[in-house]
Amino acid sequence: MPQRLLIPFGGPAPSAHHLGKAHLGGKGANLAEMAGIGLPVPPGFTIPTSLCERYYEAGRKLPAELKAKLAEGLAHIEQVVGMQFGSSENPLLVSVRSGARVSMPGMMDTVLNLGLNDITVEGLARRSGNPRFAWDSYRRFIQMYGDVVLGLDHYLFEDALELMKDDRNASLDTELTADDLQILVRQYLTIVLKERGDPFPQDPLEQLEGAIAAVFGSWRSERAAVYRRLNDIPESWGTAVTVQAMVFGNMGDTSATGVAFTRDPANGDRLIYGEYLINAQGEDVVAGIRTPNYLTTAARERAGARGQSMEEAMPGVFAELAGMFERLERHYRDCQDIEFTVQEGKLWLLQTRSGKRTARAALKMACDMVDEGLIESDEAVLRVDPAILDQLLHPTLDPHAPRKVIAMGLPASPGAACGAIVLDSETAAERAGRGEDVILVRVETSPEDISGMHAARGILTARGGMTSHAAVVARGMGRPCVSGAGQVSIDMESRVMKVGAREFAEGTIITLDGASGEVMEGRVETIEPELSGDFARLMAWADAHRRMKVRANAETPEDCTTARRFGAEGIGLARTEHMFFGGDRIVHVRAMILGADTQTRRAALEKLLPSQRDDFASIFKIMAGLPVTIRLLDPPLHEFLPTRDAEMAEVAESTGLSVSAVRRRVAELHESNPMLGHRGCRLLISYPEITEMQARAIFEAAIAVDDSVEPEIMVPLVATARELDLVKSVIDRVAEEVFAEQGKRIPYSVGTMIELPRAALRAADIAGSAAFFSFGTNDLTQTTLGISRDDAARFLGDYVEAGIYLRDPFVSLDTEGVGELVGIAAARGRATRPDLKLGICGEHGGDPATIAFCEEQGLDYVSCSPWRVPIARLAAAQAALRKG
Amino acid sequence: MPQRLLIPFGGPAPSAHHLGKAHLGGKGANLAEMAGIGLPVPPGFTIPTSLCERYYEAGRKLPAELKAKLAEGLAHIEQVVGMQFGSSENPLLVSVRSGARVSMPGMMDTVLNLGLNDITVEGLARRSGNPRFAWDSYRRFIQMYGDVVLGLDHYLFEDALELMKDDRNASLDTELTADDLQILVRQYLTIVLKERGDPFPQDPLEQLEGAIAAVFGSWRSERAAVYRRLNDIPESWGTAVTVQAMVFGNMGDTSATGVAFTRDPANGDRLIYGEYLINAQGEDVVAGIRTPNYLTTAARERAGARGQSMEEAMPGVFAELAGMFERLERHYRDCQDIEFTVQEGKLWLLQTRSGKRTARAALKMACDMVDEGLIESDEAVLRVDPAILDQLLHPTLDPHAPRKVIAMGLPASPGAACGAIVLDSETAAERAGRGEDVILVRVETSPEDISGMHAARGILTARGGMTSHAAVVARGMGRPCVSGAGQVSIDMESRVMKVGAREFAEGTIITLDGASGEVMEGRVETIEPELSGDFARLMAWADAHRRMKVRANAETPEDCTTARRFGAEGIGLARTEHMFFGGDRIVHVRAMILGADTQTRRAALEKLLPSQRDDFASIFKIMAGLPVTIRLLDPPLHEFLPTRDAEMAEVAESTGLSVSAVRRRVAELHESNPMLGHRGCRLLISYPEITEMQARAIFEAAIAVDDSVEPEIMVPLVATARELDLVKSVIDRVAEEVFAEQGKRIPYSVGTMIELPRAALRAADIAGSAAFFSFGTNDLTQTTLGISRDDAARFLGDYVEAGIYLRDPFVSLDTEGVGELVGIAAARGRATRPDLKLGICGEHGGDPATIAFCEEQGLDYVSCSPWRVPIARLAAAQAALRKG
Repeated sequence: MPQRLLIPFGGPAPSAHHLGKAHLGGKGANLAEMAGIGLPVPPGFTIPTSLCERYYEAGRKLPAELKAKLAEGLAHIEQVVGMQFGSSENPLLVSVRSGARVSMPGMMDTVLNLGLNDITVEGLARRSGNPRFAWDSYRRFIQMYGDVVLGLDHYLFEDALELMKDDRNASLDTELTADDLQILVRQYLTIVLKERGDPFPQDPLEQLEGAIAAVFGSWRSERAAVYRRLNDIPESWGTAVTVQAMVFGNMGDTSATGVAFTRDPANGDRLIYGEYLINAQGEDVVAGIRTPNYLTTAARERAGARGQSMEEAMPGVFAELAGMFERLERHYRDCQDIEFTVQEGKLWLLQTRSGKRTARAALKMACDMVDEGLIESDEAVLRVDPAILDQLLHPTLDPHAPRKVIAMGLPASPGAACGAIVLDSETAAERAGRGEDVILVRVETSPEDISGMHAARGILTARGGMTSHAAVVARGMGRPCVSGAGQVSIDMESRVMKVGAREFAEGTIITLDGASGEVMEGRVETIEPELSGDFARLMAWADAHRRMKVRANAETPEDCTTARRFGAEGIGLARTEHMFFGGDRIVHVRAMILGADTQTRRAALEKLLPSQRDDFASIFKIMAGLPVTIRLLDPPLHEFLPTRDAEMAEVAESTGLSVSAVRRRVAELHESNPMLGHRGCRLLISYPEITEMQARAIFEAAIAVDDSVEPEIMVPLVATARELDLVKSVIDRVAEEVFAEQGKRIPYSVGTMIELPRAALRAADIAGSAAFFSFGTNDLTQTTLGISRDDAARFLGDYVEAGIYLRDPFVSLDTEGVGELVGIAAARGRATRPDLKLGICGEHGGDPATIAFCEEQGLDYVSCSPWRVPIARLAAAQAALRKG
Repeated sequence: MPQRLLIPFGGPAPSAHHLGKAHLGGKGANLAEMAGIGLPVPPGFTIPTSLCERYYEAGRKLPAELKAKLAEGLAHIEQVVGMQFGSSENPLLVSVRSGARVSMPGMMDTVLNLGLNDITVEGLARRSGNPRFAWDSYRRFIQMYGDVVLGLDHYLFEDALELMKDDRNASLDTELTADDLQILVRQYLTIVLKERGDPFPQDPLEQLEGAIAAVFGSWRSERAAVYRRLNDIPESWGTAVTVQAMVFGNMGDTSATGVAFTRDPANGDRLIYGEYLINAQGEDVVAGIRTPNYLTTAARERAGARGQSMEEAMPGVFAELAGMFERLERHYRDCQDIEFTVQEGKLWLLQTRSGKRTARAALKMACDMVDEGLIESDEAVLRVDPAILDQLLHPTLDPHAPRKVIAMGLPASPGAACGAIVLDSETAAERAGRGEDVILVRVETSPEDISGMHAARGILTARGGMTSHAAVVARGMGRPCVSGAGQVSIDMESRVMKVGAREFAEGTIITLDGASGEVMEGRVETIEPELSGDFARLMAWADAHRRMKVRANAETPEDCTTARRFGAEGIGLARTEHMFFGGDRIVHVRAMILGADTQTRRAALEKLLPSQRDDFASIFKIMAGLPVTIRLLDPPLHEFLPTRDAEMAEVAESTGLSVSAVRRRVAELHESNPMLGHRGCRLLISYPEITEMQARAIFEAAIAVDDSVEPEIMVPLVATARELDLVKSVIDRVAEEVFAEQGKRIPYSVGTMIELPRAALRAADIAGSAAFFSFGTNDLTQTTLGISRDDAARFLGDYVEAGIYLRDPFVSLDTEGVGELVGIAAARGRATRPDLKLGICGEHGGDPATIAFCEEQGLDYVSCSPWRVPIARLAAAQAALRKG
């Protein structure tokens, strides 16, 4: 097939949709598709991407044969719209736009209103009956053309406009009259002549050739080149150019402009939804100068509005529009968001795209469309963005309730909560114990705050990012959290929270919106979530299409119960250290840490054993035979010791040691970089008695509860096979001891976290002793990128902004770096042990993009916080469907 | 060739050395080699490794045909030594030893004195004229055989021995008489009968078969299996068994035992060196009961000793021994360390091996042997262990001077130093300025101590490992350092150093030995190093065989000068932050850090510019055209701020800020894990003005100094190509500015450290912008292994002991983990940019094993501290020679 120089669309032009985006560019292909299904798009033509290369080959010149063809393309447009390019009576104006194979938003140039000159502007003024509009259009055209095509500095024009406004005492452009604008056009034309040496081109065809060349030229602009490099777009692709008729909704009372949805984007109901304005342009709607009217009479009546509905004002055109809805949905098989213009009684569709919708609407539409036979259940699963489910699972603020925002932080954990400010965990637990709703406000939180966080309705911190301790734990618990609210400071002495100059005493009621990061004064009403039938239907379809299992990271009975309610198929990470803080346990933990010898440590651990055993027993009971992965003690010991004098004195008293001995031990345990310190299996190797106690608690609990419990014991922070071997040998020995004592054996397995680069690289050795790998992507990200999660807030925002990381790598897995290590570990591990079980238990386990990556890598399960389990179930299903 | 069941050696047996270690095992092959060159080894035979498998295949039984062959093997031995196995007159005794293909020290079993029974013991007593010796040998044989072959608990025998000693009021075994021992033998035989149910085998052939089977059996003992697994030794290799005649030096005055070196191991002189004892066994020499005599008369006279030399007492045998020296050195082409026994006038060589020697001797021997034509220069290069050069480059303690050790720490930086205790850096600088020798004693050091460390003769710290700040910096400066001396504490108030209960006031003289970790009271005399002609010759040969360049990590003029003196071919790492501490610079640095906006920071940086420029200029001058790699600012900013109140007040005064403002900024900059925090290129991206100042200083200095300077500017802590791009764009812009201002261009290149796992994985992208990669293996090890160097001391010792890491991974590169990343980065980087320059600049750059790894990876250079440059030169030559 010889390369066609331009491909017409609209009116009687044959459909060219089959030529595709590679040839027509994204814009051209979309218009061709709309025209192809008979929608009344303003006609036009597309110059294919292949011409871009020819433009550059010819030394940045349009090929002569293309120029020759332009008249033919224009004739097609003129014929469909019944207007003439360059006519003084009924002038046709066109837009000239770029269209690369993939969208490059804002990167390349566009020219609107092309075809205006000193003569056609008069025609437009007459035809529209609106000289101000005509002169304003001409003014804008000169400025845009001057900037894009002639390369003049746009400040020249903007300065002239400002001077005119000053002169006329006008603060808004709209206050200038038609006469003012006509004078401004003269000034603009003078600027062009002066700067360029030549007058502004009055010949519409010359204008068109210039604009097409400029669009091709913008393909190799520096900013486009940078964008391409960042996004791996080959320069050779080139851009197409689309020339399309401009249509106007402000040509009098038979003209109008509007937007419509094929279904209600708020609740998903199948009805015509939208607004329009008679004798107006799209801009008028946006500018908010006039209030738009409803499309349907029913909607107008429901709202008690007065302005005529389109159904009433333009019954014929409305019927035409309504008729298109069915066609649009049948073709696109989704709810569409449409922009339309009526020009002198003729309906034109300017754009159609998948309509944005609320979470509730997304669920309803997906289910309804399956019932309507429009899509299959697998497509319904793919339709719903997993991230929006979060909106359905947490209480939200009543959108109609007034709110008085006093500070902003990061939206660290979704949901809304109101309560009294409390400044420490003890107070939180105490006041919550009295039935009060409290919000825990801290500079930052540490593991010692767990009980306070649990007692609180929500958490607010002054420091810390999206993956700070507060954020991670709050998400895990399903508590709303706003973190890193920098304006907030805390004065513990006078017990007030300060925001700038304002002070809020402990006990003052505030409200948090963990989805927006807002902190509000007083109580703002909240709405409880409804897990409607649509939710359950969609999740059932998702489960049917899912390959990977979904587990939860949980260790408290409450979290385990939540996890099961949300459909978790096991526990992927039970963090035993979280069990070390409650009640008098911390006393024994501290006695263990302060113990000078194995004897003393063993004695302290023995006191912890019964409660650890109870912890495990209650998890096993709730999980009822589902797999439970228990991680042995992970954090450095100093996390369990206090740092303040008063607390050290308390500890000294409870352990019978001197304060100075406690202080000395705290100092001894201090680490420069605790994340890389004496923790994980390193502790377990230094203090095998910890492994012994924990293994014993697990085995005794499993035997006590039920035959079907098969604990998976996970060793953290392994970097070498030998570390795992050493800890595993202790676990295996204790297992035999317990089995002998109890006269009963149970199956169990021992595996490891893969959370250090070395572990990923040495996976072949490590899999020799590990029955499973669980990717601890939090620490693996910290070590692979060399970024401390706790310290990253200072620069990570800038980094994402500068395009260094496209998303926060602690939220969505850095697949290029960390992901390669995951892939290496999976492949090498399975080479040693083909039945190696692979899962992920970092925060990333609940992130849809990461879940898709896990599916590609063939992982067996993902594990995330209980509240993200539904998201993970849906994301895993989508990943499986996309992988095909 | 049919498998031979046993291979004889010694006497007239044909040489079987060609059969190799795989067949004969290490022990068997060595004996075959010695016998093959005509050395008088006690005769014997080796049962090859292939029989081991047959032993297991037959269900742990010796093949019948092997049993049939044993008589033949014994006959060979009997014939050579003229004794008979089982004879009551002149009984032949044999040893039975294992011999795997590689040495497995202590892992497998050995039986000595086999052939003794109730009859032959009498023959031995008569023949030796020493019944006590005969009965003691029999006693030992029963115990060893009982343990190894019969599987009896060795405590049974030891208990009996202890009872006998109690009974005889003897504290040492040697106090028991022949009669006592004869009674003990009876008791032993009773123990065997009682425990085993059968009597101790009296038939020597039965004894021999049992011992051979036991050695084969020990191949699959649990400890051997564990050792093999740890060392990757296949079980299928099996062990050989060597049966060899026992010879005795205690058969009267024509018998003797001794050790000899073919050259003097202390100074390398070519002379016969050694000791011997007449009528003695090797054990007698070890036990120290008798003082051995010299071999040569000359040595005896030099020492003024009285006991007859061997040359005098046994002139014939001595001449025979002396005659062998030439033969041994010609064959082994190295100085040999020999064990010999003379039995009734007949000389037997028991063992020969390469002789251990001092650093000085090693150099002299290597050079002499080249002169003698014994070896070529390449072999001389391979002969000297690079690590020992350290001994030659630093002052050492006079070995004859008395020393009073008061504490021990880690041998963190070699060399000896004496001086007055000073407890802070200011005092160190002040007292050193007055010409006093001082030793800086600190709990641990930080970058603020650099000037004090530089002023001191040596450094002692109470905390920190081999790679603590003190250790690393001291090695870099060539200052002796003892780190982590746990007994040492410091009381700053009373200004004393405490060691246990003892107190040493500031100003007290102490001496450090950085090679042993000893801390001594008072002044111990030191010996200055002599870089003799042998050193220079060897280094010249090394340089001729070397492929990789050797650079130094240095930034002070003193260190750069030292580096050149030691042969550095460039600077691989100039750490600019080390230039930020001196004099009033730290004031400007702090003003910059405390600056609230870019303006203030820029002003402070401008004040730093002249001194930075001078720093670079002096480096460029000293390096005179050699390549210089300058790393831009790397550490987190808080390292430049004080943490103590008094110092904060000073800073407040010098910067004109309030103390609370300083305190706030210090708190703001606090990081949980500074190693993974806001540092390296992250700082340079947040504060491009730092890059601007440093780049300007580099370019202005390079232009000012000389045309031939071609600076290599290194961006630290890069994890993504975009980070490097962002910093490089600033450097390139400043370059153009400076070139335009100065009217002169110079060549320069921009590259990056590869010190994060992600950087290694993404090397293909990063090489797009980097002209060179320098592997920062300190940080790469920290991140890959997830171990903080500063915190590792607490467990890394245990880890190395437990075999988790075979060597400290901060000293010798973890080639399996970190090394794989280095290999990946090198390969991917070069795929993008074939001429990418690759080097290493971590502490590992001076470690011979790491240097060998770098050679394998094809790196272009290694860079290490100036004092290790000679070591690196030699190690690089050896690596090149070994790679071939």
